[in-house]
Amino acid sequence: DLPLTIIAGPCQLESADHAQMIAGTLKEACDTAGAQFVFKGSFDKANRTSVNAAPALGLEKGLAVLQSVKESIGVPVTTDVHEKEQCAPVAEVCDILQIPAFLCRQTALLKAAGATGATVNVKKGQFLAPWDMVNVASKIESTGNTNIMLTERGVSFGYNRLVVDPQSLPEMARTGYPVIMDATHTVAQPGGLGGSSGGQREFAPIMARSAVAIGVAGVFMETHQDPDNAPCDGPNMIYLDQMPDLIKSLMDFDRLAKANPIFI
Amino acid sequence: DLPLTIIAGPCQLESADHAQMIAGTLKEACDTAGAQFVFKGSFDKANRTSVNAAPALGLEKGLAVLQSVKESIGVPVTTDVHEKEQCAPVAEVCDILQIPAFLCRQTALLKAAGATGATVNVKKGQFLAPWDMVNVASKIESTGNTNIMLTERGVSFGYNRLVVDPQSLPEMARTGYPVIMDATHTVAQPGGLGGSSGGQREFAPIMARSAVAIGVAGVFMETHQDPDNAPCDGPNMIYLDQMPDLIKSLMDFDRLAKANPIFI
Amino acid sequence: DLPLTIIAGPCQLESADHAQMIAGTLKEACDTAGAQFVFKGSFDKANRTSVNAAPALGLEKGLAVLQSVKESIGVPVTTDVHEKEQCAPVAEVCDILQIPAFLCRQTALLKAAGATGATVNVKKGQFLAPWDMVNVASKIESTGNTNIMLTERGVSFGYNRLVVDPQSLPEMARTGYPVIMDATHTVAQPGGLGGSSGGQREFAPIMARSAVAIGVAGVFMETHQDPDNAPCDGPNMIYLDQMPDLIKSLMDFDRLAKANPIFI
Amino acid sequence: DLPLTIIAGPCQLESADHAQMIAGTLKEACDTAGAQFVFKGSFDKANRTSVNAAPALGLEKGLAVLQSVKESIGVPVTTDVHEKEQCAPVAEVCDILQIPAFLCRQTALLKAAGATGATVNVKKGQFLAPWDMVNVASKIESTGNTNIMLTERGVSFGYNRLVVDPQSLPEMARTGYPVIMDATHTVAQPGGLGGSSGGQREFAPIMARSAVAIGVAGVFMETHQDPDNAPCDGPNMIYLDQMPDLIKSLMDFDRLAKANPIFI
Repeated sequence: DLPLTIIAGPCQLESADHAQMIAGTLKEACDTAGAQFVFKGSFDKANRTSVNAAPALGLEKGLAVLQSVKESIGVPVTTDVHEKEQCAPVAEVCDILQIPAFLCRQTALLKAAGATGATVNVKKGQFLAPWDMVNVASKIESTGNTNIMLTERGVSFGYNRLVVDPQSLPEMARTGYPVIMDATHTVAQPGGLGGSSGGQREFAPIMARSAVAIGVAGVFMETHQDPDNAPCDGPNMIYLDQMPDLIKSLMDFDRLAKANPIFI
Repeated sequence: DLPLTIIAGPCQLESADHAQMIAGTLKEACDTAGAQFVFKGSFDKANRTSVNAAPALGLEKGLAVLQSVKESIGVPVTTDVHEKEQCAPVAEVCDILQIPAFLCRQTALLKAAGATGATVNVKKGQFLAPWDMVNVASKIESTGNTNIMLTERGVSFGYNRLVVDPQSLPEMARTGYPVIMDATHTVAQPGGLGGSSGGQREFAPIMARSAVAIGVAGVFMETHQDPDNAPCDGPNMIYLDQMPDLIKSLMDFDRLAKANPIFI
Repeated sequence: DLPLTIIAGPCQLESADHAQMIAGTLKEACDTAGAQFVFKGSFDKANRTSVNAAPALGLEKGLAVLQSVKESIGVPVTTDVHEKEQCAPVAEVCDILQIPAFLCRQTALLKAAGATGATVNVKKGQFLAPWDMVNVASKIESTGNTNIMLTERGVSFGYNRLVVDPQSLPEMARTGYPVIMDATHTVAQPGGLGGSSGGQREFAPIMARSAVAIGVAGVFMETHQDPDNAPCDGPNMIYLDQMPDLIKSLMDFDRLAKANPIFI
Repeated sequence: DLPLTIIAGPCQLESADHAQMIAGTLKEACDTAGAQFVFKGSFDKANRTSVNAAPALGLEKGLAVLQSVKESIGVPVTTDVHEKEQCAPVAEVCDILQIPAFLCRQTALLKAAGATGATVNVKKGQFLAPWDMVNVASKIESTGNTNIMLTERGVSFGYNRLVVDPQSLPEMARTGYPVIMDATHTVAQPGGLGGSSGGQREFAPIMARSAVAIGVAGVFMETHQDPDNAPCDGPNMIYLDQMPDLIKSLMDFDRLAKANPIFI
């Protein structure tokens, strides 16, 4: 029954200035609308479609950028980890460690993330049933850490396409952990452009709103001031200048949903 | 931007008294909440899982029941047609002819339904992409009839399970025709009980609300005062006494959605 | 353990001459290779993607063509029925009545087909689990007719694509009825070309061979001397002049499979 | 056109004696049948369903077991790697490094495996289209290593189930690299038993044979003398004492397939 949390930022961290610009814009929009806000940015893209994808900042520079956002904008930050050795250093900066969907069953990574004591946000694998996330959560719980979030980002539906199963949200909520809807990756079309992923950006607000209406704890969205020229995930990122109105609208639905609880 | 239409009733028509009782309850609930209402009931279940399923009223008796509902409760009525010969007699009583999902590509049936001049509500086949409904609609349009509605009732997702793709709603809306969410069949599990279909009734309100939030024209729901003893579709029908609160809640979301249009 | 049956012919019947030409070519190829042969051709295409598809011969002319093939070439013939009224007249000419996949759960059609006493070959719906075909078969059995064949033609896999599940063949064989692999429709891409279906003709022999290797009773294939100019299903029909070599090769695998039974 | 390669062994390495017993049995069976043989065993199960799964030998002890098999039985060996640091030590013992399906897009792991110069066998992700494996292969090729094998192990089909798409085999063969069919994981039911995976062992030979018939380079199978008491993957492993007959039968189909090439 807490207000909606918006987890948002660019797909890939570009620079401290860029991250702060986006974080500042989003922080103001969330404050205005009454939403909570967590800034997200990736220091590495470990599973890009193509080996020729744009290079990322890397761990050290990426964490410095996240630290600068944390200090200058005053918001919690999160990033995704891909190897167990990354968990401890990332947890020194980040409030939430994100486990990528492809890696959601890698026991060593989940345990290393859990052992940091930070909140662990696991994206449900494209190959996983929502009720199987209880086994994923228990790997983290085995470290004594129960600060867990579970994110829906779509399930494989034929080739080069994901589908969001609305039933997955209440299924995952049965674990008792907060459920997040990833509104932009769910409209991606993996490998849909041959050497990179396609997407239908215009449907991301639909994904966000339909999930907020049934009471999710948060919405994850990637955003950029110029998606078509962003280093990754351009086809499904939302234009930054559309985010304030979108967040305001989502909060209207969040208030109505939280006043009319349906599954959480 | 019209208020939400609720298309509801029992899966299978049982008797005039039973139909009027349900229609009366729903009419009052819709009037109170400000929703439009269409009564639905089937005179035949032409594609039941098992040959041993409970028998239905048949065309003649079924139409008499629908006529009695129309007159006594004063609401539009709809039923599903399975053979082209049924279209004309059904259209004499019903305001809307419903084409079952399995039959959504049967050209002769679509043309016969269109030729009646009644509104034709086609359920999207479990095997069909939402963008392919434009071809379905054009079969009806070929008769000069453009009173068409398109209903989402889930798409095949592995065996014995359907998934609702939220993206299918805006995709179908691109046709310009009203889009309806079938909130109860989408939580059915076809053949999931061996000789009959299973279902998760508790998720039907979630399906309804998530669709209303993004602005659908209507919601289709099957309901019964005693679903577990109903002649069909028990596992996914909603308890009749829960319908008034559900409809009221959906109308709250409908007003917010229509004031914040997102795709229609 | 009988030799493989080839059920083949053009998608749509065009004329008596055309049908006899194709049937003659296939009969000779099957005789040479040691295969059984049934000629197939459709008199109507009741569920084409588009209302603008090429018209078909219709019931009366179509049956006359099938009768001419039966007499002049001396082979059993089969066609698909779409309405219950078609079953009796079709059964006067055809040895096997084929139930289209979309209609595989229409009780009235299955009963009418069963009541003719002819063999009924049901194509498994794109939306159906293989183990649910036992319910389909029992609808036919309820007429006292146990001359039943079950055909795999692919299951919905995302949008605009089918996948053949090799496990469906032994699953359906558990009914005790002969199992047929439809090697050409399984490589179709329904609606894949917008107003018509796409397909990958080059993969049809792969589908046929992989099924023959595990012991199916028959293979269904559509063929044409000029697929790209055929009135329907061109993208997935096999060139007629490639059929003799294909049938010969399939018989080599059939003999090896029948000598090494694996599930039938 | 080389004889079929059998890649086989227990899911999880248990001891040197156990590994040698299985490797010896399989080596003899392959020699007798004329097949090539590679022994496979895992030193770690990095993505088990449950955190409570049986522990594995670990890298050091596992490699010692593989080394003992290599020396005493005289066969090439392979195992799966999960972290980039494991690639170099594993390549000192193993002829083939196997990349798990969940990790098939992890760029750093693919590059580390490629850099060893060993053959890299990538299992296609349950979430990946077969034509997207060309991007996976190019990540390995970027290290100058073109000793690549691509393995089909099924694609997500709804929840808790995989399906093998026979078309994926010729699609992957278009890369020019050898294509392997994993006949036992494809009949697994991921998470199908709640805390572990289910499976249908009886269908594994069907998967193997249908793939061999169309000309794959190899078949991957897990086997155990007592699957129901094995530390993992029991429901889908093949009984060791059934392997010699199965291999002999597969070689009959391999010879026929290689004499009648259909796609490779």
